[in-house]
This record gives sequence, C-alpha cells and structure tokens, in this order.
Amino acid sequence: MSLPEPRQFLLDLYASAVNAVSADKCLPAFLPERPANGRTLVIGAGKGAAAMAKAVEQHWQGPIEGLVVTRYGHGADCQKIEVIEAAHPVPDEAGRHAAARILNMVQGLSENDLVLCLISGGGSSLLALPADGISLEQKQAINKALLRSGAAISEMNCVRKHLSAIKGGRLALACAPARVVTLLISDVPGDDPDIIASGPTLPDATSCFDALAVLKKYHIEVPDNIRHHLESGAGETPKPDDPRFARNTQHVIATAQDALEVAAATADAAGINAYILSDGIEGEARDVGIVHAAIARQVAKHGQPFKAPCVLLSGGETTVTVRGNGRGGRNAEFLLSLAVALDGHANMYALACDTDGIDGSEDNAGAVLAPDSLARAAGLGLSAKAMLENNDGYGFFSALDDLVVSGPTRTNVNDFRAILIL
Amino acid sequence: MSLPEPRQFLLDLYASAVNAVSADKCLPAFLPERPANGRTLVIGAGKGAAAMAKAVEQHWQGPIEGLVVTRYGHGADCQKIEVIEAAHPVPDEAGRHAAARILNMVQGLSENDLVLCLISGGGSSLLALPADGISLEQKQAINKALLRSGAAISEMNCVRKHLSAIKGGRLALACAPARVVTLLISDVPGDDPDIIASGPTLPDATSCFDALAVLKKYHIEVPDNIRHHLESGAGETPKPDDPRFARNTQHVIATAQDALEVAAATADAAGINAYILSDGIEGEARDVGIVHAAIARQVAKHGQPFKAPCVLLSGGETTVTVRGNGRGGRNAEFLLSLAVALDGHANMYALACDTDGIDGSEDNAGAVLAPDSLARAAGLGLSAKAMLENNDGYGFFSALDDLVVSGPTRTNVNDFRAILIL
Repeated sequence: MSLPEPRQFLLDLYASAVNAVSADKCLPAFLPERPANGRTLVIGAGKGAAAMAKAVEQHWQGPIEGLVVTRYGHGADCQKIEVIEAAHPVPDEAGRHAAARILNMVQGLSENDLVLCLISGGGSSLLALPADGISLEQKQAINKALLRSGAAISEMNCVRKHLSAIKGGRLALACAPARVVTLLISDVPGDDPDIIASGPTLPDATSCFDALAVLKKYHIEVPDNIRHHLESGAGETPKPDDPRFARNTQHVIATAQDALEVAAATADAAGINAYILSDGIEGEARDVGIVHAAIARQVAKHGQPFKAPCVLLSGGETTVTVRGNGRGGRNAEFLLSLAVALDGHANMYALACDTDGIDGSEDNAGAVLAPDSLARAAGLGLSAKAMLENNDGYGFFSALDDLVVSGPTRTNVNDFRAILIL
Repeated sequence: MSLPEPRQFLLDLYASAVNAVSADKCLPAFLPERPANGRTLVIGAGKGAAAMAKAVEQHWQGPIEGLVVTRYGHGADCQKIEVIEAAHPVPDEAGRHAAARILNMVQGLSENDLVLCLISGGGSSLLALPADGISLEQKQAINKALLRSGAAISEMNCVRKHLSAIKGGRLALACAPARVVTLLISDVPGDDPDIIASGPTLPDATSCFDALAVLKKYHIEVPDNIRHHLESGAGETPKPDDPRFARNTQHVIATAQDALEVAAATADAAGINAYILSDGIEGEARDVGIVHAAIARQVAKHGQPFKAPCVLLSGGETTVTVRGNGRGGRNAEFLLSLAVALDGHANMYALACDTDGIDGSEDNAGAVLAPDSLARAAGLGLSAKAMLENNDGYGFFSALDDLVVSGPTRTNVNDFRAILIL
C-alpha cells in the first residue's frame, strides 16, 4: 500500500475522530424506553447540547419538549426542544437565565415522567446559577482565586458544587420524583460523570465541610454570606446514597478514547500503524509538545517504542500559561512548540485540534505542521521560537495558511493530537 | 516467571543502566593504537573524566601522562594521570587553573605524539577559560543573560565558544601537530560530539558573525572589549575543513540510549517488557511527569500503547523552573509531579535518578515512588501537591526514606526514568 498524502491523512483522522463522538452517531443507542404514562422532558447544557437535543428529536418516538443551553455558535436546528445560546467560558446573563428556566421547567413533575438530561463539556459555565443569596460576581471571584491557587480540578469542583443552585446533583433533585436519565459526552480525563459539567444531575460525594477545607488549604478568603452558606450546611449537596437518585441512570456516550480508537482504525485502514499514547494528557502545552517531539524522534532514530511509518495519537487537555500577547489556543501552542522541538525534522507531520472545533477563543480548530513549516515561516521573516515565546501559535500557522478551520463541531471530547512519522 | 519485587527491580534497572555507560566498561574498546615514536598525553574534563582516565591507565600499554579535571567528589584513584577536582556548575579558580595547565601541557608536541582527550558532561563548566582580555565575570554575566533570554542551547554554545580560550576546537589546535583522539560520554540529546562540553577538541561550524547575531537577536548588551573580540574576528574558532583536524578522530563511547538499552534488556531478563519512550526528553520536569503519568494510566486502563506488566523507560534532561524554596533536583521534581498525577494509582512504581549519581546539587541520585507513597506522606502530615508547589521533591522523598543515594557514579548520560506498571 502506498503512503497517504500526509496533510489529508491527518485531516481525515481528525474528521473521523470528531465524527465518532458526534451526538448523531453516539446518542441513539442510549435512549431509554419511552415512559408509559408520563411526559418526557429534555434538558441539558454544554457545547454538544444542541446536537444532542437534535439527535433525541430525530430518534424519539412520542411527544417531547424541553430546553438546552449551548455556547454561542454551537446551536442546532431543533423543532421541539428550545435551544438557547450563551457565553463560555465566562458565564453571562443568557446562561443564568436559561439555567433558571430549566430549574423552573422541571418543577411539579410526577414519578411517571422522564427527564432526559444531555450534558457535555462547557456545561458548567453555561449552567452557572449561584445558590440563593450568592451573587454571580462572588462566585466568579472565588473561581478566579481557586484557579490561581493551584487547587486540583476536583477541589475546585467541590467548592463550585457547594455554591451552586444547580450543580452537584441539585438539578436532579429538582426533577424528583421524575426519573432522570443523564447522557454525557465526556471532556474530562477519566470520564467521571460527576465531574463533567460539575455533575448537575449526579450525586456528590463531597460535603460543605470539604469545600471549607479546600478554601482553608489554599488560604482563600470568602465573604461572610458564603462562609455562612457553607458552615450552616445550606450549601450541602445530595449524597450518593440519597434514595431520590435510586431510579436515575447515567451513561457516558462518547469519550476521548472513543475518538482516538476510531482515528486509530482510520489510520490502520490507510496502512499506517497507530499508537494511542493517552486519552488524557494534561500539563503545559509547550512542554507536552516537547515530550511528544522526543518520542517522535525516538521512533525515527531508533525505531522505539514503535517502528515508522506510524502515527502517534493522544487526547486530553493541556494548559497554556500566557506570557506573551499573541493569539492562539492550546492546540496551536502545542503544535508550535512541537515545531520548534522537531526543528524541521524530515518526514514528520502533525495535527493538533480541539474536537469542539474551536481552539480556545479563536476561529480555528487547530493547525497542521509539516517538515517545511519552519523554513516557510523563515521565508516570511517569522521565527517559530520567538512566536512561541509570545504565545502566538495562531499567528504562526495563520501566516502559513496552515490553520484547520472546521467551525463548531457540536461535540467535545477535548484535544486531538496526531503525529505522523513516515 | 513471577513478578519481581518492584523497588529492587527499579534499582536494578538503574544500576544496570549506569554500569552500561561506565568508563571501565565502554572506554577500552575505543583506545587507539599506541604511537610508534611519540608520547601519549591524556587530557580531559567532565564528571566522568577521572573514571575515564583510570580506565585508560588500566588498559594502556606503554608510558602515559596527563591531567584531567572533574567535579568535586567525582575523582578516582589514578597513578599516572593527575586528577584535579573543581566546581560545577559554577566554575571556580581550580577549574580555570586546571584549564590553563592543560593548555600549557599540550604546547610543543610533535606530529608523532598522541593526545587522548576524555570528555564528558560537565566539562564545559570545568574547562571555563575565557579568551585573552575577557574576564570570567564577563563571561558569567553573558551566560546568565543568555539563560534568561530563551536562547537555544546551540545558540548559547555558539556564543560561549567564541569567548573561550579552549572551547570550540581551540584545545585541539593547541595540541597540533599532534594527533588528537577524543573519547566522549554524551549527556546531550542527539549525542552531537561538538556540543558535549562545548567541543574543546572539535571544529566549530559557527562563526563570530553567528555569535554576534545571537547577541543581537536576544538584545544582549555586551562590553566593548567583547564586542571588539567578536567583530575583529579575534574570537574565531577553527572550522570543520581546517586541515589541522585532518588526522583527529572522535568517538562517542557511551550515550543515554546505551544505558536505556541495557536497562531494557535487564527488565526483559526479569520477565518484564520494557519500552524506551525517548533517550532525550527535555521540558519542565513537572509537566514531563504529568505526561509520563498519562501514558502509564493509558497502559493500565486500556492496555495501550503497551500491555501491562511493562516498564516505561526514558532519558534526557528536564528543567525545573524554581518557584518555591524547597530542596531537590530535576529527578525528584519529576517524580513528585508523577506522584501527584498518579494519585496513588495501584500497581505503579517509578524511579527517577541522574546517572551521574547527583540530582542537582543534593546528595542523592534521585528517588523511588510506590503506590503507597502519597498515603505514607499524608500519614506524616505531608502534602505532595504542596511540596511540589514548593519544589521540595528532596524533602518529600527524604521524609519517606525513599531517596536513592548512590554517590557520584563518575559517568554521566543524564536522567534515567523508569515506570513499572504491574
């Protein structure tokens, strides 16, 4: 079999990965039975919420209604389920209003009713509704302090859940006594349902006491009303043994691993061995790029740990510590760091894209890298290293006309990276 | 075959890796013919220089003399070759004096004479001799500015070579017309001989013009005497086509890859499949730890890209951006980050040690990690995450009595990392 054209090959892998985790493809198999004598309500939040709602509409037998909230631009054309677009990652009034309407909509349901809750990454920001007596500004201030503190995601989620009117299982309680079936597209390493979008319909194993301990551990000062909210137990979340969750179920319908597996199969079909390094790589994007480059060099130089030709795949969510004033998301930053570390190495091509189609807050999903990228950039008077220092991955790949622009994909299993070594 | 005891298994891998790249084992095969009618002089610098000199003494037939410089504590008991100990990584007067004596010693040789030059990592600091008219303090100031600038190692070496009286091939020129055979133990990714210890006996492809371009690129101001040294061409290094190098040869006798290959064979012999991820991983130690953790988790959860039980091996040189005031080198930092990211994952053990036996400027080579390390630390009131924030890897593993203390190994192929997944 002849070797594939590298750029198109990588774009094909990305397309196959995204398609594998689209709501249209993944959701129908997980639809529950229609309730015999009750209503079916659809609610949800996240970058994939509108596409999930549309998939429900297309495959549901019987009457259905509801409301989901998604990010601006990630909407879909639904007939029966209302779709509201709101701001992400910083919540806005549209999201707060949608969250209040959803909570209101599930009041007064009976035990014969079914609530289908459609959750995907981004849902946490889109469903930001502070608990009574707490302002959105107060929650945002604590959020920022947590982000600065070095607290783990699990610790931040613990605090967030205990200051929310909807997270940490409260949305499911509001639905009681109706049965709640939650379908989730996971964008978190480990695919833990109660972490995705801070688990609005899942019980919470942590307590107000834990939230206070996190605030103390990281020396985060909070206003008196919030301290009282936690100390009084007013912010307590429902626990896993709560009988009100007994009839509820949840299914993670799509994960980063699913996307990577299908991309690997696509590569295999093209005659290229694929190796999945990890479905959940975290860490600073530029350092993750350096490590990927080192592994790719080992393949080329020593045939270890894999023989070329092959493609290395990985998922997860890197972070970018902004030092410059350039443009670009974490995938562009990863790829530019990879470019610098590979230094124009022959026969190596790469793609890094966000599976939601939007790399950070730009208009691209990511970018592609070829052995001649650095030389072409130099021909334009651009230094990859200097642009990396300035966090200007978007500028670099834009100048080379090497951005990948897909528009919102309406799903989200986080980053997708592929390095082809011929 | 039964599974090995994890801790001893990892220590055995490390010992086998270090032994594989010891001068005693690697050097004899590369010794040249004894000159028919001339003297044999041995010179050298680096953490392995004394052990290399001793290996030469033990295997050389005929008269021999010379002088090598090594780091304090890395000396060896030589009979004919003088061993001087000096400071690393910040040069001191002992090193400068040794460099001057070496340059003096090789004056007046004939074309019948042979110079054996023994180079290993650390040699650059140990052989710090500024060019005429440049002070050590001036070189140090430029060095610091380069380190801050984000310049690549190759760019920093270019400047250093053009401000030195001994680097960039000048030492070999001083030996002319004698033949120079350089034996090198590599501590640099790529194992390029003219990068190891800034190549004192290897011709230099870069020029004074290149050095000036680096200084301009990174906006580094230099005193007039240094600018004149470069602009006048007084700092020019000998080039690869220089006929005075025509009879010289060099051999890289030991590399990180060699160490990793032997460790892999040791693991295989114990019934554990070993996979070498890379012999040259760079990047921030804590992020490198996070990526290694993600790959290890993929092995445990999905049997990708390798099936457990197995051991993942890697080499290279990470960096630590110091943010706290704790103790520890880059291997302890890597391992503590790995510990936090693995979060007590069952059946995972790891070791990270510097092959020179000294992790940074501490008294340990590195440390070992076990599934119960975090819990044992918590029992002592220690938080791995907080200690990582404080760059206190040494403190963490010291409290657990999990440091690996080998003392100087007298060789140096950089970091050695092994993660065992049972």
